[in-house]
Amino acid sequence: MKIIIVGATGTIGKHVVKALEANNEIIKVGSKSGDYQIDMADLASIEALFEKIGHFDALVSTAGDAHFGPLPQMTETEFRKGVDSKLMGQVNLVLVGQKYINPKGSFTLTSGTLSDDPIIYGAAVAAINGALNGFVKSASLELENGVRINAVGPGVVEESPSYFPFFPGDIPVAMHRVAQGYVKSVLGGQTGQVFKVI
Amino acid sequence: MKIIIVGATGTIGKHVVKALEANNEIIKVGSKSGDYQIDMADLASIEALFEKIGHFDALVSTAGDAHFGPLPQMTETEFRKGVDSKLMGQVNLVLVGQKYINPKGSFTLTSGTLSDDPIIYGAAVAAINGALNGFVKSASLELENGVRINAVGPGVVEESPSYFPFFPGDIPVAMHRVAQGYVKSVLGGQTGQVFKVI
Repeated sequence: MKIIIVGATGTIGKHVVKALEANNEIIKVGSKSGDYQIDMADLASIEALFEKIGHFDALVSTAGDAHFGPLPQMTETEFRKGVDSKLMGQVNLVLVGQKYINPKGSFTLTSGTLSDDPIIYGAAVAAINGALNGFVKSASLELENGVRINAVGPGVVEESPSYFPFFPGDIPVAMHRVAQGYVKSVLGGQTGQVFKVI
Repeated sequence: MKIIIVGATGTIGKHVVKALEANNEIIKVGSKSGDYQIDMADLASIEALFEKIGHFDALVSTAGDAHFGPLPQMTETEFRKGVDSKLMGQVNLVLVGQKYINPKGSFTLTSGTLSDDPIIYGAAVAAINGALNGFVKSASLELENGVRINAVGPGVVEESPSYFPFFPGDIPVAMHRVAQGYVKSVLGGQTGQVFKVI
């Protein structure tokens, strides 16, 4: 399979690469590294990516930024950081990518647990994650030619220790377990699902 | 109580007004009608609204547009209609409104069932609804002075017959039942909840 991994050199993405690279052709996409570079918040950048890559079998996105901070001081500009990057970036990968994906291909996006299991400072991220979960459930009804779509929703991950203080009582998730959420989506048969990894 | 109802003359809003007007001071806000007019997609317009109204006890939003249409042809511009209006409009009512709301006040936003019970053509709306549900759950942890926040998530409503063909098998919800979802949020004690009305 030809698998595009957007965010391939990031905290989660590099483990997804490791889990899938043995039997597949991996195309690594990043903001600054990888085989191709894109700006997640820029539709034209995403369109150019697919024009260069052409057809593919699976796309995994582990990319996108969002604002993490206190609600009482939160501004629209801060909130929109995640809207433009983690939400619209990933949605645009699907809206544009659906024109290039092979039959029976799959999209796997990254949301997170905060929309259902919120924490202090997480209001903007929770909204973005909730949007992505709603989007994959609904988009799965309309993708054509047997194309599937799922989201992986990890809790705080082992390799992000700077976030641990903000997730009191949550056990950080081992990276190999997170990676298997993506493997399940790409190689399994399910669609319209949110695979929580906690 | 001084209650701001944004979308007061709309399909749902007028029933919320009817359900709450007996014992409260209702301030009606609309895009073209009501006591005050705002553009939901414009932060400056929302800021100006609160500057004019000042302190209040409850805000109900039944306002905001979103794109409804087929995924295979969906563009970023169409998707962003709901992001700018139904999502950011309602989020901005909270981000700005939290500076004006009285202690023990409440925010009640409108999401919908499509994020959990999707239909064909509903991918953008499902995303927006999911975002709003995630936002209220998380924001409830951080609103200060006992201020509460909930969302009401109605199914297709009786007074929107043009949508019935897109909701096969769904029983349209009576307007008085929808209105009670808002009454439950404003007059009850719960916070961080999504009250589905189906």
